Amino acid sequence: MSLNAVLARIDTDMPEVMDRLMDLLRIPSISTDPAYKNDCDRAADWLVADLTSLGVSVSKRATPGHPMVVGHIDGSVKNDAPHLLFYGHYDVQPVDPIDLWDRDPFDPEVQNTPKGKVIRGRGTADDKGQLMTFIEACRAWKAVNGSLPCKITFFFEGEEESGSPSLVPFMRENAAELTADVALICDTAMFDSTVPAITTQLRGILSEDFTITGPNKDLHSGYYGGIAMNPIRVLTKILAGLHDDTGTITLPGFYDDVPELSDAVRSQWQGLGFDHTKFLGDVGLVEPAGEQDHTPLEQIWARPTCEVNGIWGGYTGAGFKTVLPSKASAKLSFRLVGTQDPDAIRKTFRSTLAEALPPGFTVEYRTEKASAASQMDISNAAFEKARNALSDEWPRPAAYIGGGGSIPIAGFFKDILGMDSMLIGFGKDDDQLHSPNEKYDVESFHKGTRSWARILAALT
Amino acid sequence: MSLNAVLARIDTDMPEVMDRLMDLLRIPSISTDPAYKNDCDRAADWLVADLTSLGVSVSKRATPGHPMVVGHIDGSVKNDAPHLLFYGHYDVQPVDPIDLWDRDPFDPEVQNTPKGKVIRGRGTADDKGQLMTFIEACRAWKAVNGSLPCKITFFFEGEEESGSPSLVPFMRENAAELTADVALICDTAMFDSTVPAITTQLRGILSEDFTITGPNKDLHSGYYGGIAMNPIRVLTKILAGLHDDTGTITLPGFYDDVPELSDAVRSQWQGLGFDHTKFLGDVGLVEPAGEQDHTPLEQIWARPTCEVNGIWGGYTGAGFKTVLPSKASAKLSFRLVGTQDPDAIRKTFRSTLAEALPPGFTVEYRTEKASAASQMDISNAAFEKARNALSDEWPRPAAYIGGGGSIPIAGFFKDILGMDSMLIGFGKDDDQLHSPNEKYDVESFHKGTRSWARILAALT
Repeated sequence: MSLNAVLARIDTDMPEVMDRLMDLLRIPSISTDPAYKNDCDRAADWLVADLTSLGVSVSKRATPGHPMVVGHIDGSVKNDAPHLLFYGHYDVQPVDPIDLWDRDPFDPEVQNTPKGKVIRGRGTADDKGQLMTFIEACRAWKAVNGSLPCKITFFFEGEEESGSPSLVPFMRENAAELTADVALICDTAMFDSTVPAITTQLRGILSEDFTITGPNKDLHSGYYGGIAMNPIRVLTKILAGLHDDTGTITLPGFYDDVPELSDAVRSQWQGLGFDHTKFLGDVGLVEPAGEQDHTPLEQIWARPTCEVNGIWGGYTGAGFKTVLPSKASAKLSFRLVGTQDPDAIRKTFRSTLAEALPPGFTVEYRTEKASAASQMDISNAAFEKARNALSDEWPRPAAYIGGGGSIPIAGFFKDILGMDSMLIGFGKDDDQLHSPNEKYDVESFHKGTRSWARILAALT
Repeated sequence: MSLNAVLARIDTDMPEVMDRLMDLLRIPSISTDPAYKNDCDRAADWLVADLTSLGVSVSKRATPGHPMVVGHIDGSVKNDAPHLLFYGHYDVQPVDPIDLWDRDPFDPEVQNTPKGKVIRGRGTADDKGQLMTFIEACRAWKAVNGSLPCKITFFFEGEEESGSPSLVPFMRENAAELTADVALICDTAMFDSTVPAITTQLRGILSEDFTITGPNKDLHSGYYGGIAMNPIRVLTKILAGLHDDTGTITLPGFYDDVPELSDAVRSQWQGLGFDHTKFLGDVGLVEPAGEQDHTPLEQIWARPTCEVNGIWGGYTGAGFKTVLPSKASAKLSFRLVGTQDPDAIRKTFRSTLAEALPPGFTVEYRTEKASAASQMDISNAAFEKARNALSDEWPRPAAYIGGGGSIPIAGFFKDILGMDSMLIGFGKDDDQLHSPNEKYDVESFHKGTRSWARILAALT
C-alpha cells in the first residue's frame, strides 16, 4: 500500500468528490416528516448505488421506518487486520424556520467566507458530508491499491434525526452480520479548528416531564392565599432543592456511579487550554455554574447535570391574574456519565419528589426517555493508532475529548454487538447543526477524507 | 315607604331581573386584555342605559383606560337621610384555561345543581351579579315608592380586574362629586351560605411581574448543561426561598407592621366555627399551608401572604426539547395586612432578588401594582344598622369578618374621600371566582337584592 499515493489521489479527485456530495445533499431526506418518505428512500438508493460502484456488496434493508443500508467488502488478505464497521446517517433535520435560510437548503453550494470555503446546505455537516469522508477515503484507497486494506462493513441509517426507532431491533436481528472488531462513527466535531478529536465519552440523558396537582381547581389568591398550598411553591421548592449552593446535585446516591477522570485524561484536557471565560462570555455568561470542585471542561464533558428545560404554571399572559393555580409543570433532564443507571436515578428522583409533595398532592409523569452514558475503552490499541494518524493530518495533535450531548449509537454497539466505537468527526462549533444555514467546512471535508485514509493505514 | 311591598316586588319581578343580568353577563368585558376594549365600553354603555331607565342622571366618563360610569339620583326629602355611594365593577377576569369551561363563559344560563340553582358564566359573582343586586333593589324601591329614600351616587369602574390604574386619578379629579356619607361596596362574600357578613378588614396587595435573563440566547443543554447557569434554576431558588418550612415568609422585616388580632376579634372569629378541613377539602387540599403558629382563619383574613401566580420559562410545548433557556419569568403577589408598607416591601423583595442573581444576570420588572390593607371603623352607627338588616333577611345573624382578598377601593374611599365603606356581598366560597365555570347562586342574587332593600330602609 502507499498512503501518500492515496492522499495525493484524494487531493486530485476533490472536484468530482465534491460533485458526488452535492448530489447526495440535493435529496431532502428529512426523516421526521412523512412527506419526505420517498426522499429518504432515494437517499438510501443513492448510497446503495454509490457503494456498489465501489465494489461493495450492499443492499437496502427494509424496517418499519426508513430503510437501513448495509454493505460488506473484503480487504486484501492480511491475517491481523481488523474488521471495521463504519456508521453514519443519511437522514437530515427539518429546515424550519425556512425564512431564516439564505438559500434553498437542498440546493447546496460552495461559498467563500472570512473563515474559508464552506459547503452550505441542510445535511452538509450532519451527517452527509461527514459520512462521505469515509466513503471517499475508501474509494481513493481502492483506486490506488486495487483493494481495501481490511474487511469493512458499511452501516447507514435514515432515522437518526427522528429518534432511531428501528435501530435497536435491526441491530438485534442482524447482530452477527453487523459485528466487527471496532466501529467507526463520523458524526462529531473537532475540539477546535486546529485540534482533531476522538470523542471517548458521551453523556447519557434521562428526561422527566411532569405535572403536580394540588387544589382541584384554580383558586383566587385572595380567598385561598396563605391557607391553600400553591403547587408552584411546591414545584419551585422541589426544583430548587435539586442543586446545593456549590452546584452539586442533591439526589441521594446520584454520584455513586460517576467516575473521576484518570490523571492521564485530566492532564490531557488541561493541555487543551479550554477558555471557559470566552466560552461563557460568547453567550453572555460570567461564571461556571456546575460543581465548584470540578473544572469547567469537566462540567461539560465528564460531570452529570440536572437542568430544567421548561417550567409553567398559573397565569402567564399579559397583565396580572391573582390566581393560585391547581397545577404546576416542568420538563427536566439529567445528563448522565460513567455507569449512572437512568432507571435507578429516575426512581430516586420520583421518590424524592413524592416525599416532597404535601398530603393530597399528586404528580403525573408523561415521558420515559432515557439512555446511559457511553465511555470508550481507550486501552484498545486502535484508539492510540487512530489518534496518531489524526495528529499527522492536522496542525496540532489530536485529543481524546468528551461530549456533552448524547449519541446513543456508541452505547448500542457496545451493549448489543460488544464493539468499541471510535467517534471521529470533523465538524466545527459554528456548523449550525439543526439550524438554518447549516454548513460544513471544505477543509473538514477534504482533510477529513485524508484523515480516514491515514486511519485506515494506521489500523491495518 | 313600605319595605314589605318592596320585598314583594323584588320577588315578583325576579324573571325580568334575571333577564337584565343575563344581558350584562353576555358582554365579554375582560379588562386586562386589550382585545376586549370595545366590550368593556359596551358594558359601560349598558349600565348607563340601565341607570338612565331608573331615572338616574348618569354618564360614561373617559379615562386613559376603560371608562367609569357615574350617576346621581336624589331621594325623597328627609333631612337626616345619608347620601350613599354605591360602588361595583363591570369588568371581568380572563377566561383561560377555556377548555376547562363546561360552556361558553359569556353564554350564561341558570343551572340546577345539588346545592340549588346557580347562574353560570364569567362575571356572575365577580362582580356583575353582585352589582346588579343593588341596582335591582333601587329599581324595586322606586317602583313601589315613586322615589328612592335618600340621595344615591352610583360609581362603577371597568378596571378592577386589571389593577384599577385609572381609579385613583379619577377619584382625585372628581372628589367633590364622589364624596357621600358612606360607601356601599358589593364585591365580597358571605361567611357561609347561612351567615351574611360585613367585611371590616381587607388585605392589601403588592404584585411583581418580572423576567430574569441569563444567557443571551437559548442554549443546547448537551453542550452547555452544567457549565451555564440556567435562569430557571435561579428563579426557582429565589421563589422557593420566599417561605421557610413553617410557611413563614423570609423577607427581612416583612412582619414588622403586621398586627396581632385583638382578643375581642379573635374570640368572635373563634365563635364562627370555621371548618378549615372542609374549606380545604372542598378544593382537594388537606393541610393549611400558612404560618403554623396562626389559626387557619387568621391565615386567610389577618396574615400576609406571598403567592406565585404564574411561572414560565424554556420549552413548554408537546414533546421534549433539551433547551437551556435564556429567560425565566414569574408573576407573584403579596397580600398585605395592618400597616405593612407596599413600597417598602417591594424594595426589600427587589434587593433580595438582586442579591440572589448570579453575575451577568439581569432582571426586568413589568408591573408596579400595590395597595395597602384596609381596616374599617365599625363604631360608625351605619355598620350596626346594616348588620341588623342583613340578619333579618338570612337564616343566621350577620357577622363582621375579615377578607383575604384585596379591595383597595375601600382604602381609597377613606384616604381620598374621607368616607367609611361597608363591604357587603353575597358571594359563596364555591363561586369559582377567577376560575373556569364561575357561578353565582340564584339565592345570592335574589336574597342579596332583598338585603339591599332592607339596608336602604335601615339607613334612611
